[in-house]
Amino acid sequence: MYKDFTVSEVNEVMQKAWSAFYACKKCSLKQRAHFMRAIAIELEACGDALIQTAMSETNLPEARLRGERARTILQLNQYADACERGAWMEISIDTAIPDKNPPKPDVRKMMIPLGPVVVFGASNFPFAYSTAGGDTASALAAGCPVIVKAHPAHAQTSEMVATAIEKAAKQCNMPDGIFAHVHGAGFEVGKALVMHQHTKAVGFTGSYNGGKQLFDWANQRKEPISVFAEMGSVNPVYLLPEKLNTSASDIATMYAASITLGVGQFCTNPGLIIGIESEALKIFTHDLGKAIQKIAPAPMLHAGIAKAYKENKSNALLQDGVHLVAESEMEISSAVANPDGGLRGLPAIATVDAKTFLNNPVLHQEVFGPYSLIIRCADKHEMLRVAQQMEGQLTSTLMATDNDIHQNEALIEAVNNTCGRLILNSVPTGVEVCLSMHHGGPFPASTDARFTSVGADAIKRFARPICFQNWSNALLPEELKNENPLKLLRRINNEWTKEHVVL
Amino acid sequence: MYKDFTVSEVNEVMQKAWSAFYACKKCSLKQRAHFMRAIAIELEACGDALIQTAMSETNLPEARLRGERARTILQLNQYADACERGAWMEISIDTAIPDKNPPKPDVRKMMIPLGPVVVFGASNFPFAYSTAGGDTASALAAGCPVIVKAHPAHAQTSEMVATAIEKAAKQCNMPDGIFAHVHGAGFEVGKALVMHQHTKAVGFTGSYNGGKQLFDWANQRKEPISVFAEMGSVNPVYLLPEKLNTSASDIATMYAASITLGVGQFCTNPGLIIGIESEALKIFTHDLGKAIQKIAPAPMLHAGIAKAYKENKSNALLQDGVHLVAESEMEISSAVANPDGGLRGLPAIATVDAKTFLNNPVLHQEVFGPYSLIIRCADKHEMLRVAQQMEGQLTSTLMATDNDIHQNEALIEAVNNTCGRLILNSVPTGVEVCLSMHHGGPFPASTDARFTSVGADAIKRFARPICFQNWSNALLPEELKNENPLKLLRRINNEWTKEHVVL
Repeated sequence: MYKDFTVSEVNEVMQKAWSAFYACKKCSLKQRAHFMRAIAIELEACGDALIQTAMSETNLPEARLRGERARTILQLNQYADACERGAWMEISIDTAIPDKNPPKPDVRKMMIPLGPVVVFGASNFPFAYSTAGGDTASALAAGCPVIVKAHPAHAQTSEMVATAIEKAAKQCNMPDGIFAHVHGAGFEVGKALVMHQHTKAVGFTGSYNGGKQLFDWANQRKEPISVFAEMGSVNPVYLLPEKLNTSASDIATMYAASITLGVGQFCTNPGLIIGIESEALKIFTHDLGKAIQKIAPAPMLHAGIAKAYKENKSNALLQDGVHLVAESEMEISSAVANPDGGLRGLPAIATVDAKTFLNNPVLHQEVFGPYSLIIRCADKHEMLRVAQQMEGQLTSTLMATDNDIHQNEALIEAVNNTCGRLILNSVPTGVEVCLSMHHGGPFPASTDARFTSVGADAIKRFARPICFQNWSNALLPEELKNENPLKLLRRINNEWTKEHVVL
Repeated sequence: MYKDFTVSEVNEVMQKAWSAFYACKKCSLKQRAHFMRAIAIELEACGDALIQTAMSETNLPEARLRGERARTILQLNQYADACERGAWMEISIDTAIPDKNPPKPDVRKMMIPLGPVVVFGASNFPFAYSTAGGDTASALAAGCPVIVKAHPAHAQTSEMVATAIEKAAKQCNMPDGIFAHVHGAGFEVGKALVMHQHTKAVGFTGSYNGGKQLFDWANQRKEPISVFAEMGSVNPVYLLPEKLNTSASDIATMYAASITLGVGQFCTNPGLIIGIESEALKIFTHDLGKAIQKIAPAPMLHAGIAKAYKENKSNALLQDGVHLVAESEMEISSAVANPDGGLRGLPAIATVDAKTFLNNPVLHQEVFGPYSLIIRCADKHEMLRVAQQMEGQLTSTLMATDNDIHQNEALIEAVNNTCGRLILNSVPTGVEVCLSMHHGGPFPASTDARFTSVGADAIKRFARPICFQNWSNALLPEELKNENPLKLLRRINNEWTKEHVVL
């Protein structure tokens, strides 16, 4: 539908972004925030047409898409507020001590933008992690021009959102080139964008293979750059014995819903459930199976994802020692009622013993869709081994009583050590957009465990510190001036304050 | 003198560090800080013997080494204070809003240690950037076990410092394996350390080739890890016309001292001086040459560095269009007076026109030692081009009046964009250890421009966020509990406070 950009068109876009970068650096925090809020207003103004287009491209239901647009608008407004508050700039001022030996100079530090940021949209979040999503919002807040590569699975939705951003940019008199929208279904366009000398960072949400490829390209550049790829995660759930004993059926009900939420197409979908062989685990497995049988399959995002889900699930089920517990029994009737039967993701639960799991890396891989594997451990020592050998995860969940927590210290430490978010007695699906959220995790969950892609701290990914030494007050940037004209919270000689610098 | 560790010895060290890591995570901030302060005391207690050993291994003068040890002690104490203050943990607490739709869970975020950190000591800072130096201090503050690979050029000094650290660890009952000291003159030991599955980050100070190699290895791992390599930098100095007109001789005097300080063996040594062709630039060049002639060459760190300096300087001087302005005329007498003549670094100044510089990448490379190249630009446009094509730098310096700054906005922006520290009317040598310092810069100055290796913010390199969702107060780590038992500054629902969480 949209023609792939040529390499020379990519060059042109990046050249324009580079010129815009110098202009963007000069935009005040207020201007940046104003622009972000204007994008939010334009997104809302796209009205039903945008929702309809996204529905036709992604198969996502209307209510979900309305909710996701609202979340995208919230993100833009929340990060705009954070941009103005300026905590992300981590300002620090040390005043001079001329009679120290050697004399201490006046040094003042703040964050400045990295440069043009290339954002790759996610197929499963056409709004919140795509064109005007979290990566774009945080890069703009940091003062970086943004170049979005439209996800080919929802290119028209992306085009409509891009138009909204461009409209907002014009209204706010933002520098020409602050935003660009690039189409490219093949890998060549993505590669050209990542390898371009003017690209200074990359944001990505998607598969391990996609994210790892961008990361490798970025590190092979003459000047390596940061890639913030939020990749796959299987989000293990540990069922501790006392909790399982008292709540097996309740946990099964809770997880049947979490595993199948949004046809399992969330990066926080719980793909592994780990318990100790027991009567309670049998009850849990039985009840979860029963619940899954009754959940109707729904269409997945696109044919490629539906096909991958079928293949990956079949492959997992073919592994030695893996047994199907149950799958949805609603398939045939649904497929008859809807001609899109081929797109539907059939919910399924399987089980395997821990020894087999530990020895088969295939079973550690994400099966993107409404599928989860129950791992049966012989005892708590085996559960600990599973936790210790777990790859990096966006989330891990403990279903546990206080007593379980106290009696499994080594397990809790091992789980803590392999995830970015540790949930107690709840489900991993659902990622609150707030400052305290961390969405990221040790590799391979993300390529940089030190940064989040959700919440206003995501802005920090696209900025770096610079230190001004021995500058006179009049020549310093507003953020660092003695009189604190922007009323920012700053560290002055190690103390946080909004006060003036007193010399 | 010391035998290289075998791969199996490296494995053993890393296995021990991994076990220690779980114990280290449990050490309170107070315990970590106490240990760091104990190391500082033990370093002092090493007395003259340590200084004598370092003198014999590095050729650095006694006063410099005493000063450097004092700085190392200051770093340990300063980072210990910062460890306890806890700002580096960037704690953030969002309390639950159960009646939001969907309900907002209680989420609380803090930094936790990455895991065992491998530190490569620097040849030019046997104390401050070696065994108990800035990288070790920041990794310990973050709660990471540290494995130091001794620099082969000062292995005995390193051994003495390691013994001091081990003594402090015993006194403070720190977990066994919190610190290890590894010898390895060949690259194999370094490679084995970086590639080991239990290594979670690397700190390095040294050459571009060394740092880039570690970075490439780390990214080729199955689980890539962060490498914080502070590599070479040529630290350009821009002489703006009005300032140069009024102060050519003064600047020449100031820079003759900075270029030859410590025999030019600082990563912030000014290696490029950029001016516009003029009578004032001639006076500056003449006066700088005269001053350099009178500065006696002194012994460099070791024969390898002295040889590399001679070769790199000769190679630079052989490039088309490069002319020697002056070199020290004190060579022969000094060499006669001292049998170590071959080790001496002969100060020298050369010059080249900007066109030649822009077209010859050899001239952009660091010549580690007391050497600087004056670049003559035809006009301010050519100076801007030089700034725009400059590689990433630890520091850049502007010698400028207020008027110069106002009339060269594009130049200032270009310089700002390529450095980590921007100095006005001073010299880049001398790096103040304080919170507002930034020592790092865009590639190739360092492998990660977002982090500093000097000042307590260096701790953040070795930590990552984790988010606790839906935990009861009793089960949360001390740092995140409602009652704030450690009295830390925390963000609660977006506001910085030391108060309790009120639910």
